[in-house]
Amino acid sequence: MSGSTFGRQFRVTTWGESHGKALGAVIDGCPAGIPLTEEDIQKYLNRRRPGQSKVTTARNESDQCEILSGVFEGKTTGTPISVMVRNSDQHSKDYNDISRAFRPGHADYTFFEKYGFRDYRGGGRSSGRETIGRVIGGAVAAKILSELGIVVSAYTKSIGEVEAEKYSIEECAENMFFMPDNEAAKAAEKYVHEAISAKDSVGGVIECIIDGMPVGVGEPVFDKLDALLAKAMLSIGAVKGFEIGEGFHAAKLRGSENNDMFRISDDRSVIKTTNHSGGVLGGMSDGSQIVFRAAVKPTPSISQIQQTVLEDGNEVDITIHGRHDPIIVPRAVVVVESMAMITVADLLLQNVTSQMGHIKKIYDK
Amino acid sequence: MSGSTFGRQFRVTTWGESHGKALGAVIDGCPAGIPLTEEDIQKYLNRRRPGQSKVTTARNESDQCEILSGVFEGKTTGTPISVMVRNSDQHSKDYNDISRAFRPGHADYTFFEKYGFRDYRGGGRSSGRETIGRVIGGAVAAKILSELGIVVSAYTKSIGEVEAEKYSIEECAENMFFMPDNEAAKAAEKYVHEAISAKDSVGGVIECIIDGMPVGVGEPVFDKLDALLAKAMLSIGAVKGFEIGEGFHAAKLRGSENNDMFRISDDRSVIKTTNHSGGVLGGMSDGSQIVFRAAVKPTPSISQIQQTVLEDGNEVDITIHGRHDPIIVPRAVVVVESMAMITVADLLLQNVTSQMGHIKKIYDK
Amino acid sequence: MSGSTFGRQFRVTTWGESHGKALGAVIDGCPAGIPLTEEDIQKYLNRRRPGQSKVTTARNESDQCEILSGVFEGKTTGTPISVMVRNSDQHSKDYNDISRAFRPGHADYTFFEKYGFRDYRGGGRSSGRETIGRVIGGAVAAKILSELGIVVSAYTKSIGEVEAEKYSIEECAENMFFMPDNEAAKAAEKYVHEAISAKDSVGGVIECIIDGMPVGVGEPVFDKLDALLAKAMLSIGAVKGFEIGEGFHAAKLRGSENNDMFRISDDRSVIKTTNHSGGVLGGMSDGSQIVFRAAVKPTPSISQIQQTVLEDGNEVDITIHGRHDPIIVPRAVVVVESMAMITVADLLLQNVTSQMGHIKKIYDK
Amino acid sequence: MSGSTFGRQFRVTTWGESHGKALGAVIDGCPAGIPLTEEDIQKYLNRRRPGQSKVTTARNESDQCEILSGVFEGKTTGTPISVMVRNSDQHSKDYNDISRAFRPGHADYTFFEKYGFRDYRGGGRSSGRETIGRVIGGAVAAKILSELGIVVSAYTKSIGEVEAEKYSIEECAENMFFMPDNEAAKAAEKYVHEAISAKDSVGGVIECIIDGMPVGVGEPVFDKLDALLAKAMLSIGAVKGFEIGEGFHAAKLRGSENNDMFRISDDRSVIKTTNHSGGVLGGMSDGSQIVFRAAVKPTPSISQIQQTVLEDGNEVDITIHGRHDPIIVPRAVVVVESMAMITVADLLLQNVTSQMGHIKKIYDK
Repeated sequence: MSGSTFGRQFRVTTWGESHGKALGAVIDGCPAGIPLTEEDIQKYLNRRRPGQSKVTTARNESDQCEILSGVFEGKTTGTPISVMVRNSDQHSKDYNDISRAFRPGHADYTFFEKYGFRDYRGGGRSSGRETIGRVIGGAVAAKILSELGIVVSAYTKSIGEVEAEKYSIEECAENMFFMPDNEAAKAAEKYVHEAISAKDSVGGVIECIIDGMPVGVGEPVFDKLDALLAKAMLSIGAVKGFEIGEGFHAAKLRGSENNDMFRISDDRSVIKTTNHSGGVLGGMSDGSQIVFRAAVKPTPSISQIQQTVLEDGNEVDITIHGRHDPIIVPRAVVVVESMAMITVADLLLQNVTSQMGHIKKIYDK
Repeated sequence: MSGSTFGRQFRVTTWGESHGKALGAVIDGCPAGIPLTEEDIQKYLNRRRPGQSKVTTARNESDQCEILSGVFEGKTTGTPISVMVRNSDQHSKDYNDISRAFRPGHADYTFFEKYGFRDYRGGGRSSGRETIGRVIGGAVAAKILSELGIVVSAYTKSIGEVEAEKYSIEECAENMFFMPDNEAAKAAEKYVHEAISAKDSVGGVIECIIDGMPVGVGEPVFDKLDALLAKAMLSIGAVKGFEIGEGFHAAKLRGSENNDMFRISDDRSVIKTTNHSGGVLGGMSDGSQIVFRAAVKPTPSISQIQQTVLEDGNEVDITIHGRHDPIIVPRAVVVVESMAMITVADLLLQNVTSQMGHIKKIYDK
Repeated sequence: MSGSTFGRQFRVTTWGESHGKALGAVIDGCPAGIPLTEEDIQKYLNRRRPGQSKVTTARNESDQCEILSGVFEGKTTGTPISVMVRNSDQHSKDYNDISRAFRPGHADYTFFEKYGFRDYRGGGRSSGRETIGRVIGGAVAAKILSELGIVVSAYTKSIGEVEAEKYSIEECAENMFFMPDNEAAKAAEKYVHEAISAKDSVGGVIECIIDGMPVGVGEPVFDKLDALLAKAMLSIGAVKGFEIGEGFHAAKLRGSENNDMFRISDDRSVIKTTNHSGGVLGGMSDGSQIVFRAAVKPTPSISQIQQTVLEDGNEVDITIHGRHDPIIVPRAVVVVESMAMITVADLLLQNVTSQMGHIKKIYDK
Repeated sequence: MSGSTFGRQFRVTTWGESHGKALGAVIDGCPAGIPLTEEDIQKYLNRRRPGQSKVTTARNESDQCEILSGVFEGKTTGTPISVMVRNSDQHSKDYNDISRAFRPGHADYTFFEKYGFRDYRGGGRSSGRETIGRVIGGAVAAKILSELGIVVSAYTKSIGEVEAEKYSIEECAENMFFMPDNEAAKAAEKYVHEAISAKDSVGGVIECIIDGMPVGVGEPVFDKLDALLAKAMLSIGAVKGFEIGEGFHAAKLRGSENNDMFRISDDRSVIKTTNHSGGVLGGMSDGSQIVFRAAVKPTPSISQIQQTVLEDGNEVDITIHGRHDPIIVPRAVVVVESMAMITVADLLLQNVTSQMGHIKKIYDK
């Protein structure tokens, strides 16, 4: 069936494979009148581009985007925004020797079984390059959020056993891991290099915060803000867990510890004195900062010998060559941020019609 | 907007509030020809019914279901199945004194802000009674899964700090917590009663396993099996986290530890020698057991004094009376199971058209 | 699959069969704060109720509706509105002798082939009683439209060869055909009674006008206002054609005859000097009155002898007894009106997010 | 909101404007394993290409398509198929002098009001070039239908007052109007040239037949086959009416004339002795040929002087230059056919899960 569209009102449809001609996204339902340029999108694509540091793949892609429709005189027109990135550095040959093997930890086997055959070049649609479409969608969503004063920021919370101890947005930009703690980043670098030496890979946790959300965004009972953020995160290839606010830790707390009290602030607005909920109550934003985390597994492509089977049903031992990230966490940060922005933009649009009074405000002359 | 429908092909729409006349669900897209009776559904509803033990609310509801449409001569007809449960034991008065207060940890404030006013009786739509519709949907999904030999089982993995040390499906039925470990259940009982004495509440973790899944179920890239399970879980009121397979622990493993090797079994099928992935690769079932967990926060309704504000913006201290579970985990087990069954049933139907060969098999004469 | 939901933002899900326990609808996505009572809905249901005149079925149903959820203190809460009508006067026996025959012009054969078996009592889900859910949805939509000053009115344009020559809204209420022309209605009565004498049935055309629409409602390119009205109309059992504005006649006009000129009105707004377009340009409302027509086929249940086949593949001659309308046009008028109201309400909500400026108007403090 | 996607399971999302960089479509949900080449698509695009005869626009576009994703080793992979056509012959200057005027019969005014501003170049998204994406989607759908032995054929039924008197599929290819009657085509040519001389334009009716449909395709009650065909047709820019089988004529027939009798054929299958229904009963295919018609209005762009208003609210008289078809019917034939194929392909996929027995056939080993 068709699973390449995310969102109901702000809809992002992605397409493209690792070694196809191009990848891209069509964004439908974006309101008209928002300034949008290729630079706005390129800025985000550059953050996921490979080849930026020693811990990312050597594949060299400029990933230049081209806006093909939906923008006129620098502004969105309300019609579908189609954005494309051409593939250029495709080393299909790298995959030939293992092209008929199911790589452990990858989607080769499941793709083959589901569809009856598969594009074995670089994982095809299950490649990390598929996230280009997500980042395009996220960059467009960012423009909507910007108009409403909402800021979404993701960063690396931990690499393997190494966790950031502080939160400094400046330091995020200063180390190759996008960690808000340069000291932790240094320890992480050592940790990753040990894994590289052992022909191995590592995982980590990405945290994301959303500031400036109005209260009440999210659609009970199934399209709750946290439910859709969870879907958005788990839809990213390597993500294996999601939690919001206290998350799994909440299961060990008592109600009196986990509840956030309400008070009235000096400017007469309702505030919470703590934020154990992570900014969501009943599936709707509660006016506090939204805080969630996604767990990223270690890259499955490792150059150690691994046991597996071939499409024809024979067993084989393989070693994966090619250009792979020993850790995808740093490059996944912008993907987490993008999916969060798409989710929030969609729900912000959906929420507009929650009250009859809102609708009258638009139509009344 | 409209967020009360789950699923694309097997669609469950729930309706009803805590203190309204009734609650129910409409299931659309259920294949024709499946035997279905009210008993099939009642069996599941009874598992979430209140008043079953000392650790659940004293609200006394028989929660008898009535099938109103979609079944003829004992079988589903392919048309919408409408099922209703009447509310009977509604103590609206219990809520009057705090009716204008925003209860900490509840959705009162967010509902009020989103919709401009709210049904203050027992949480209205955000009440735990909303899950009746989910359990109805799950019971119908169970009939589809049963035809395909798929079994979904949820149970309590931990209560607060007390974790089950073994997995015995028999013992699940022998203790009030649905824990697969009677020893742990005893410890949990002590743990919960301490909280009750302190006018407090506790949370826990529910684990769910799915056996018998064919390979390749789940729709890349956004409607992945794990992505939709995550959405399904986080859409349940008190759930704050989701993980599959190694989950958050995967972030600390190396690739060589987390990858599952493929081998050929004695009956010539592809198997994995381990199951760190939790039964999902690339968002599709990989033929192994699916294993995921949901973190449940402690019940927000506690009878300690709490600080909060009123709808009119004044601060107040409240004590919540009424009939509340000091822990909702045991009653949420069947809700987790139901949402998992709905998710899996929907994706099983979606997957049928993945190959042209499948479609020809149906239409060829 | 699941085809019982209409609309994307204002979503109406209908359920129920002719001879089941009940029929109803769940309306999800209705904005909060709209006054709604059972009387509001009953008023519309009464217009489609059988037994109102000599030209409708003798089946005696009071069709009393019950609101089960979604309304609190007389206003919509933003949560799903569930409304039910119990069946009472079910003469299942009437169908026994032809229960295994495929009635000509009915959906018996196609239902049987699609689902493998069928509810043969009164057409099951394909009965005219299915429209109860549509009228419920329409009555709720009417409340939204009323808040925005939009009025939808359907009436009988023609019965067989007899066409209304004038448009008087008062006369609509004065004759049993809801024709805006009492003279024509008299001729129609004669026409219908001739058919009844011949054990036959007749069809007709229903016209619908929508006044007060704001400009720009409708979502290019597939969810255009006229495209969704067409879908809405053809989804009604007996409707075989749809046209808007000049409709089929436009195919015979020249561009200079069919184009509507724009001018500026005295109050400085843009107006069209004619309305050949029927109020829609490019799939969006153009500010003029929306005018469309639906062609209704003659009732297929006639008491003449007809040739057909049985489920077991044998040929048979049947005579249909039971209680059938010799013409369903008069009772279909409110169904056409209801589907139009649902369509327009949905698109009005969808349109709110067309401009970033609208969204800011809601969220800006 | 987002209205650029058609279909639920076989989903076609189109994008692009008349004078943007490119136009295209993303097809999601296409089953894997279907042979597909650019030639398969180009063949259909060539049928809608401008410049093919004296009665079409002189705009010279080669409309070469490029498949960007979703096909590997000549077969569909089950992942999204992205296809693009670059614009080349863009005479934006042609529009400058009337760029601020609302052209009569066009969507200029409604686009401007809905979105707050508009792409005035050649109609932007409301241009006939938007149909390129539809034809791409139709060409892919054609491959699915071909695997199932289903054939969809559209042709011109009438041009203005000139109607085809016979049906010869060969003659369709022999005249510039795609009329199945060369004599009528000659009369139509004369008719059109008279209009051209008068600086005017003409409309017509397109008929479409579908052969080989299995019984039971279409999803009651809202996603009926005829309801979705009606939506598909009315979503095409210039279409103002839709009818199936007897259509509007049915409103004048008696039940005994309009009903189709069932009989058993020599090969023991159920057949209808007539086909007044147009191949649809209860919204599902009934095994007969599906026959429907779409009414196309005369091209609104005419070179006569027309009255209109400017964006700034001033009245003006305009003459439309540029390159316009005096009749769009011949080029719309392939668009009608494409939309029909998309609709039917989508419903064929949806129908697969109607019976539990079908699903077991796929999953049972």
